[in-house]
Order: sequence, then C-alpha cells, then structure tokens
Amino acid sequence: MDFDSFFKQALDGLREAGNYRVFADLERQSGAFPRATRYRDDGSTHEVTVWCSNDYLGMGQNETVTAAMKEAIDRCGAGAGGTRNISGTNHYHVELERELADLHGKDAALIFTSGYVSNWAALGTLASKIPGCIVYSDALNHASMIEGIRHSRADKRVWKHNSPEDLDRLLSADDPSRPKLVAFESVYSMDGDIAPIREICDVAERHGAMTYLDEVHAVGLYGPRGGGIAEREGLMDRLTVIEGTLGKAFGVMGGYITGSRELCDFVRSFASGFIFTTALPPALAAGATASIRHLKQSQDERRLHQDRVRRLRALLDRRGIPHMDNPSHIVPVMVGNATKCKWLSDLLLDNYGIYVQPINYPTVPKGTERLRITPSPLHTDADIDHLVGALNDLWSQCALSRAVA
Amino acid sequence: MDFDSFFKQALDGLREAGNYRVFADLERQSGAFPRATRYRDDGSTHEVTVWCSNDYLGMGQNETVTAAMKEAIDRCGAGAGGTRNISGTNHYHVELERELADLHGKDAALIFTSGYVSNWAALGTLASKIPGCIVYSDALNHASMIEGIRHSRADKRVWKHNSPEDLDRLLSADDPSRPKLVAFESVYSMDGDIAPIREICDVAERHGAMTYLDEVHAVGLYGPRGGGIAEREGLMDRLTVIEGTLGKAFGVMGGYITGSRELCDFVRSFASGFIFTTALPPALAAGATASIRHLKQSQDERRLHQDRVRRLRALLDRRGIPHMDNPSHIVPVMVGNATKCKWLSDLLLDNYGIYVQPINYPTVPKGTERLRITPSPLHTDADIDHLVGALNDLWSQCALSRAVA
Ligand SMILES: Cc1ncc(COP(=O)(O)O)c(C=O)c1O
Ligand SMILES: Cc1ncc(COP(=O)(O)O)c(C=O)c1O
Repeated sequence: MDFDSFFKQALDGLREAGNYRVFADLERQSGAFPRATRYRDDGSTHEVTVWCSNDYLGMGQNETVTAAMKEAIDRCGAGAGGTRNISGTNHYHVELERELADLHGKDAALIFTSGYVSNWAALGTLASKIPGCIVYSDALNHASMIEGIRHSRADKRVWKHNSPEDLDRLLSADDPSRPKLVAFESVYSMDGDIAPIREICDVAERHGAMTYLDEVHAVGLYGPRGGGIAEREGLMDRLTVIEGTLGKAFGVMGGYITGSRELCDFVRSFASGFIFTTALPPALAAGATASIRHLKQSQDERRLHQDRVRRLRALLDRRGIPHMDNPSHIVPVMVGNATKCKWLSDLLLDNYGIYVQPINYPTVPKGTERLRITPSPLHTDADIDHLVGALNDLWSQCALSRAVA
Repeated sequence: MDFDSFFKQALDGLREAGNYRVFADLERQSGAFPRATRYRDDGSTHEVTVWCSNDYLGMGQNETVTAAMKEAIDRCGAGAGGTRNISGTNHYHVELERELADLHGKDAALIFTSGYVSNWAALGTLASKIPGCIVYSDALNHASMIEGIRHSRADKRVWKHNSPEDLDRLLSADDPSRPKLVAFESVYSMDGDIAPIREICDVAERHGAMTYLDEVHAVGLYGPRGGGIAEREGLMDRLTVIEGTLGKAFGVMGGYITGSRELCDFVRSFASGFIFTTALPPALAAGATASIRHLKQSQDERRLHQDRVRRLRALLDRRGIPHMDNPSHIVPVMVGNATKCKWLSDLLLDNYGIYVQPINYPTVPKGTERLRITPSPLHTDADIDHLVGALNDLWSQCALSRAVA
C-alpha cells in the first residue's frame, strides 16, 4: 500500500468538503490581550484582535499567574522530570490538588496533563474497572468523554441532549442491580446551553447511579468562587465527580477530577493515562493555583465578562445578526454553510483584523456552521463596535439572512 | 452499589500485594539538581538527592531553557488559550515543529500535550483509519502504545520482544495485501535494552509495512545531534514515524511525531486526541525548542552522562550489587521482591537522603522488582560513592544476594 497517497486522498476529501483546517499562526501579546500578532504564510505579520479564545477571562496575562509561573521556574526548573510516581510529584502539584478539592467542596482531587486526558482516563478507568458498569452519556458530550467511554468497552446508552426524561427512561430499562454512571457537561461549548443539573441528579439518584459532570466551560466563570454551574446552583455535593480544565478560564493548561478520597485514589492507582506519563511542570501547577485562588476571591472578571457578553448580544440584535440564544457566555453567530463560514472568517481576518475561527463539521452538525464568539472582560466597547460593524458589512456583502426582531 | 466501598476494596488489594503507590512529595531545586527538598507527611522537610529522574541530562535547570520559558511568558502569557485550531496555535508551536522535523530528518512534525498522547493518538488514528490495517506490536511496548492500538480496534499481533525473526514469522502469516504497521521502541525504559532497529526495518520493508519507532528514552541522549538511537545508527530515513517526548531528556513536557508531510497532516486532521484539547503553553514550546537546539550542538551533556553511567556500574560491580547489564543509560538494580524493594527505597530516603522510587508490578513483572537508577551529568563522584555505599550497607543488613564477579 502507498500510505502517503492514501493520506493525501483523505486530505483532499476534507479540502473538497470545505473542512480542511488551516491553523492561524499567532503570537499572543501578554499585557495587551485580546491583541495578538498574526504570522502570514510569507512570514509578514499584522495585528489582530482575538475573538475566539477560551482563555475566557484573560487570566493568561494576569500578573499573579505569570509571576507564580516564573517563580516556580526559578525555584524548580522547567519540567517535573518524571511521572507522578517516579520523582515527578512536586509540592506544587500537592497544593494544586488541595486547592481544587476545596474549590468543588470535595475530599480529594487528581490532576492530569489536560482536560481531555482527565475525561478519557477517569471515565475509561471507572467504566472499565467497575464490573458490569453501564454508562449513560448525553448525546452532545465532548470527544474526550466519548473516547473514554468507548475505551472502557462498557455498555453505553446515549440519552437525548439535556433530557432528564430520556435519561430516566433508559435507566429504568436496565437491570437495577448493575452499577451505573451518568456522564454529562454543564455548559456545552458549541451551543452554550446549560444542563438541568438538579433534575439529572434527581433521576440518577433514584437509580443509584454515579454522576460525572464536565465543568470545563464553567469553572472560574460561574459560582461565587468560580466553582462552576454546580456551585452557582448549590449542587456540588450532588455530583460524584466534578471534572474541569486548567486551560480555559484559569488560563494555563492541565485537567482534573474531584470527588471522594476513595474515587480519586482509585483513578490515581489504576488509570494508565494518569500513571504512565510525565507530570505537569511545576510552573503550570503554580500558575493554575494562583489563578484559582485569584478567581475564588475576585468577582470583577466574572462581572465584566457577563457585561461584555450582554453588550455584544444587544448590538448583534440591533443589526439583525443571527446568534443562538443561550444562558452562557458563548455567542454562536450562525452562518449555516461551511464555505461561507470560512469566507467570512478570512475576510474578518484580512480586512478587519478580527480573528474568529470558523466552526464547521465535524465539530458541529452540517448546516449549523458558525462563528463562535467569546467576549472577554478585556474586549472594549470599541472592540465590540468594530466587530459588529464588520459583521454587518459582511452580512450585507454576502447577502446573508438577518434575524427578525 | 456502594461505589466507595468497591474502590476501597480494590485499593486494599494493592496495599496487601505491596503495590500501593505513595508519591514522594518533592521540590526540585533549580541550579542544584539533582538535589530536591522532600516534604514529609507531617509538613517537615529534608534535602534529598534524586536518583530516578527522567530529566536525564538536567536540562530542566539549563538556563537557556528556563530563560526561553520566562521570556515566552512575558511575551505571550501563561497558556495557549485554545485548541490548535481555535486560536491556540502560537508561533512558538510552529517553530518547535520545524525544529523537530529537522532533528529527525523528516518533512514534518506534530506536537501533542505529552508523549503518552502522541502515541495514543497517532497509533490510534493510523491503525483505525487505514482500512484493514494490522498492527505488529513489540511485546514490551509502553502502555501509551498499547492503549492507542487497543483504541483503534485494528487487528493486532504481538511479536517477541526485540525479535525480528518472530516479527517476520507473524508478518509472513498475514495476507500480503493488507496494510501493516510495525510499532516498537528504541530504548526500553525498564530494562534499558535497545531494539535491533536495522533488522526490524529490513523485515518490515520486505513486507511493505510502515514502521513506528518510540524514541522517548533516547531523544537528546544518543546520536550526534540528540536525534536518538536511529540517528546514531544512521537509520532515521528507514522509519516511517519517529515519536518522542519533550518531557525527559529535553526537560520540559509534551510529545510529538515526525514523518512525511502527508502523514503528519493526516494525524493533525483526524486525531481526536490532537484536535479536541488545549494546545501546549507557548512557554513550554519555547523551552523545548531551546533545549533541542542546545542539545543539537553540545556534546558535553551526553559525554558526561555516559561517563557517570560507566562509573556507577563499575562501583556497583566492585561491591557485587546486582544490576541488569544493558547498552543504555538506565541502571536497574535488581531486588526481585516487592516488599524488600519498597523497604530499601524507604531506608535510602529516610537514612541516607537518597531518593529512588521502587519499581514494582505492574510496571515490571513480578519477581523482577528493582530500583531503577538514572545517573545524570550532574551526579558527582561523591554522589555516586554515597549511593553505592548506602546500597552496600543495606545489601548486608537485608541479606540480599550479591552478584558474583
Ligand atoms: C467539554 C470539554 N471537555 C474537555 C475538554 C478538554 O479540555 P482540555 O482543553 O483541557 O484538554 C474540552 C475542550 O478542549 C471541552 O470542550
Ligand atoms: C516508552 C515510553 N513512551 C512514551 C511515554 C510517555 O511520554 P510522556 O511522559 O511524555 O507522556 C513514556 C513514559 O512516560 C515511555 O516510557
């Protein structure tokens, strides 16, 4: 077999469907977020405003965070130097795990190299090691959860997105004596909708099922201490596991689970994806701890964040730019066509200095292609005006349909 | 089901078998490697010498590396702020991928959040997306490769460790028209033995199979530019994929594959574990690039490393401390019993200030429990004397058998 021809053919298929991804080559400007320098293919550069970052609060340039990282580099060096078990556990990891357990009101926490790995390894381990376990997975769960469940080879049922009724129906149909695990997210990242956590917990509890909640797009952003939607709703104690990331609102990198001491120790002891990999650099653990501590105290970032989201929505409405209504900070401007979506994104970048990555299939279903816009506390009124003005121009040029007020 | 009782029971099982892991809580001392501060359970601390780090060359405290990281934090902030596709590609990533392609003499490279994820995602994607692919896996391959192959659900054949003959036998038994992938490592991390890469490539080539080589324990350490064993042997062009880590000899964190432009683009475009996760922080990419560039030029670290390994082996031999003979930098001191291995490690730590983690089942087979010792260029003659003296004391106290000269 000629392997390279096979790869080329598959890539050509993506190109034809308008789904071939070209990465924007950026240099973020610490101290000037959301500004970044973009490198063009010919090596020349220009300044852009980033409108699609998941560093939702700009914590990546927070000086407490960057100072903590640099201090940890000065004290402990670049990397951890080993797996957690073999010389790689650093005191910064121990402190971060305490901080995370406290954040979610749990006994214990366990950190992973990413949110992806935390979902994959924790769900994969729980579902495969608990004999006879059945996993109930929300239909729109993230790839990392799906892969973890798939990896476990446990029996799996997919329930209708955000439907406690459908979950109840599926749970009722199974043998009551089998162990059960319900996996879902709080804020879904592409539509920005929020799960009915209480109702889902009620149903799960009735069937004696564990609950596993991914708060990746909510930690730092919601709740009085940034504990996520479950904290805001006073539901943290109803969940068996709360999972999160250190790479979005906390602005650094890494992932984690929190739960009972036994559960975390079990995953620590049996998860291949936790055991057989170099630990997070001390500097990342130090930066994440500083970020979490800051957002436990400060409401400013969260307040300003919601304010920016409201302002953007209001201006989009005024111009009739269609966006999906939802109760979160994610503003999906709907285009509904892969080619147009890419074209809009290119024009915004080249003519307006605005960077929003097009979101196409397979990340979202065909026909729902969109510009997923994420305002941050650092986007000014002028930034918002410029974005909406640009979209308004392009909506006219491209004869895209307007929303009716 | 009472989940916590189930977890507790499983953990008690580990404790009884002597396989329950307790992580040493350390603080590495940049500028004073291999020294570290150890935190005891009661919060008190003492100084230890680390003898089991995989920061093999001490690059984690190299000032070019730490300065590059701090500069990147000052310029770009803490995290990448997004997945590679959605605002997370930073110019430092682009440069690092160029550097890695050059290191291994390949057209392209692709970075992942860890070596674990690079193996899991690349093997999982190649083996699942190439229709009818059969994977031939060395019997002692690392967990990350095994999980990737398992995840792909491709047909799998396990060949006898380091045996080109057995590989040939298995390849010959299969349909010649099916696509084939041979996966193996160069330096095996627990025994320190090295694969016959040339012979394996000969066999694979005869059967038209792709070759995938994990050089995680060799990059930075072998070859005139630190390209690994395949570079040293002049074989880099014979391998379809060379995979490595940024977290061991390079001293930082992250993983990568290198190969043809088409292959890397294919994995980039289809691997869930690459696509759906926050990119490495710019600072890690900057540190890794600095480390690779340094080790491309400098032979000092590699020369001194091998010198320290030789000296340690000679002193162990003089005292009759049994260690596995191998052609690499890994010195496995054989104990052969889980309880004694843990006991030795505890005494070394508490009475001699020497930290070597015991390596027990399931990381190595039962009966081959060991202290896996990794000398670095930074261990002095006095450090080596102290270690061998301590082992000699304990070998007598514990009445462990000596090697016969
Ligand atoms: C819902 C959800 N879970 C998990 C992840 C993975 O987290 P991380 O980026 O830290 O790997 C993501 C996105 O990246 C996500 O959207
Ligand atoms: C052979 C081998 N491959 C891959 C890995 C994973 O690399 P990383 O630590 O960068 O995840 C390891 C060890 O951690 C390893 O020993």
